[in-house]
Amino acid sequence: MEERLTANGLSGLQGYHLRRASKHVQEDLARTLEPFDLRMITFSALSIIAENDGLRQFQLAELLTIERPNLVVIVDELEGNGLIRRDQVKTDRRAYALRITKVGKKRLEDALHAVEAHEKRLFGDLSDEERQALKSALKSIAQNSREEGDHG
Amino acid sequence: MEERLTANGLSGLQGYHLRRASKHVQEDLARTLEPFDLRMITFSALSIIAENDGLRQFQLAELLTIERPNLVVIVDELEGNGLIRRDQVKTDRRAYALRITKVGKKRLEDALHAVEAHEKRLFGDLSDEERQALKSALKSIAQNSREEGDHG
Repeated sequence: MEERLTANGLSGLQGYHLRRASKHVQEDLARTLEPFDLRMITFSALSIIAENDGLRQFQLAELLTIERPNLVVIVDELEGNGLIRRDQVKTDRRAYALRITKVGKKRLEDALHAVEAHEKRLFGDLSDEERQALKSALKSIAQNSREEGDHG
Repeated sequence: MEERLTANGLSGLQGYHLRRASKHVQEDLARTLEPFDLRMITFSALSIIAENDGLRQFQLAELLTIERPNLVVIVDELEGNGLIRRDQVKTDRRAYALRITKVGKKRLEDALHAVEAHEKRLFGDLSDEERQALKSALKSIAQNSREEGDHG
């Protein structure tokens, strides 16, 4: 019966195709980031820290919609690799301001070039109409779902 | 600085929006399936078993692209809830053929109605053009990524 196996019920669902495409893009992105010693979540964190010099750990946790213990792992990893530093806040000794280092800036820049190439490879052959429809469809879908968005 | 926090680098990536929309759809689907005591993966498995009466466990594992130990959990859950049964194959005593029960058929039918409503709620306000473009864009993206597809 091997050749007769079907999953028509699932492949009739639009959410199924969305999930499948998203999974492929994520796997491809993970492979793209690997040579830079970055994971999707550390790449996201580094990118946000670069844009928001001195932001606090709790703010990064909020933007990434992750729990504090998980954030510590991410921040430790980035700091351990010399990509960011953690400065104690003068007015609040328990708080830390996150800053990207020179090494971190260079790493992010290189990773971004690779990510741009990855995006071009995956999305590059869409027509302008498809790209526009994809954008507007994804926006509409996100709005129609009940949960709020995140940057994770 | 709260109000000035940005994630422009990330939100400029098409993969980011794809992932975000997919995550929302998955969360919404999980909530949709909860009243039926189904998870996304058990729903997928039940749907495939319904379509392929008597398929073997290893075939289901292949279609779901999951490892055997994880499959056992899924099959146990479905069998424990009376939705499928596991028949020993006469010609191979170590093999089991999976079959949906009457209760399972009814449960799947009810769940499918809820899933259709969920899809309509999330994708219903796309225009025909957007829907078509989304479909073709997702197909193109999946093809452009290096990995093979799955039904998980």
